[in-house]
Amino acid sequence: MNSELGTLFLVPCHLSEDNKSNILPAYTVEIAQDLIHWVAENEKTARRFLRDIGTNVGLNDLQFSLLTKDTKPEHVKSLLQPLFEGHSVGLMSEAGCPAVADPGNILVAAAHQWGIRVVPLVGPSSILMALMASGMSGQQFAFHGYLPIDREQRKKALLELEMNSKKRKQTQIFMETPFRNDALLEDALKWLQPSTRLSASVDLTGSTEWNFSGTVAQWRKSEIPSLHKRLAVFCLLA
Amino acid sequence: MNSELGTLFLVPCHLSEDNKSNILPAYTVEIAQDLIHWVAENEKTARRFLRDIGTNVGLNDLQFSLLTKDTKPEHVKSLLQPLFEGHSVGLMSEAGCPAVADPGNILVAAAHQWGIRVVPLVGPSSILMALMASGMSGQQFAFHGYLPIDREQRKKALLELEMNSKKRKQTQIFMETPFRNDALLEDALKWLQPSTRLSASVDLTGSTEWNFSGTVAQWRKSEIPSLHKRLAVFCLLA
Repeated sequence: MNSELGTLFLVPCHLSEDNKSNILPAYTVEIAQDLIHWVAENEKTARRFLRDIGTNVGLNDLQFSLLTKDTKPEHVKSLLQPLFEGHSVGLMSEAGCPAVADPGNILVAAAHQWGIRVVPLVGPSSILMALMASGMSGQQFAFHGYLPIDREQRKKALLELEMNSKKRKQTQIFMETPFRNDALLEDALKWLQPSTRLSASVDLTGSTEWNFSGTVAQWRKSEIPSLHKRLAVFCLLA
Repeated sequence: MNSELGTLFLVPCHLSEDNKSNILPAYTVEIAQDLIHWVAENEKTARRFLRDIGTNVGLNDLQFSLLTKDTKPEHVKSLLQPLFEGHSVGLMSEAGCPAVADPGNILVAAAHQWGIRVVPLVGPSSILMALMASGMSGQQFAFHGYLPIDREQRKKALLELEMNSKKRKQTQIFMETPFRNDALLEDALKWLQPSTRLSASVDLTGSTEWNFSGTVAQWRKSEIPSLHKRLAVFCLLA
């Protein structure tokens, strides 16, 4: 570790527009308030976040570089430039924890390659909160990101998750883009075994938060609110 | 969901004795300060935590029930009693997030069975922070808890994690009891392929925090501090 280099801080942000100001620890906010240099997926939402937490840096002095799923590997080193010059940099995601279910990890990997100190900060993760709320095994779990869009392939993916969950006694965590949640849930309730446990955690930390967990048989008998266009994370344990 | 029942709040606590007061969001602390009824792994550390965050409840009025890995399934319903009587309950772990890598999930599962509202709160998770800091894939990952103690079985487990990581393009996360960290790391550096990436996140959120990530070949050439009796989480990507 070279002490003349800056530090790369991994800065979580809020999950819900309803609950922004008191969802981050003082430890995280105080570090973020002083950072001038940022790498983010979207400059506009990053600026709004920094305004919300009360940055100590003038809004015109903030420096943003973009890192998205389309960023080319050969471009990543240039994002580290402020760190080489001794400035610290904040890496931010669109929601929740950076470098988890977003492209930020390639910046973290590059930082390690150049001997830059990496410090993850504390904040909300919808994946981890969904796991906590599921009541399923937190000793063995796997996260799979988004399932396939094609219905035939999605059915196959769900059955594979169920089979692997049973074989490995492992909670399976997955997500869907918000406008496809209802279709995913419909498929899950159609194809999974009645005894398989399924949970949904919706609008976590927000005023409309909803956590439901039960067997597929119980789900089929329950009144389920629409999950359309709501942020949801699902867990499954067979 | 029955609104005459209490709510089960999942309350994370600090990871490091060095950093306790400002590691939790106000959102979490304010809910925890008002809770009278608690389920915890250890009453003494739970009391200390509540003193540290400044509970609004008199220390003699706090009510604790214990939930450990030895708690019998038939005893779990009795832990929900305050919830049936309309009181909210906080579930707390020894460190970090409850119901993740601890026995708390059986209480959460029971709460869902009885229609009790479950609300996960925001706080530190060493598992998620280690994943963030690793720079490895955060799109696909699996957590495996503790590896076997027996050295021959541990070797087998490490090689299996490496093989599965390669096959599934999945980051593998695992832990060790603090006094066995150095032995685990020795075995990992002995048996894993030189090109496999390995990370260690040690003393997260504390003053001695250390995050290192690189190929096994790089680890072998690096000066590694002793991890003895320090809290560590490891990630691997082949």
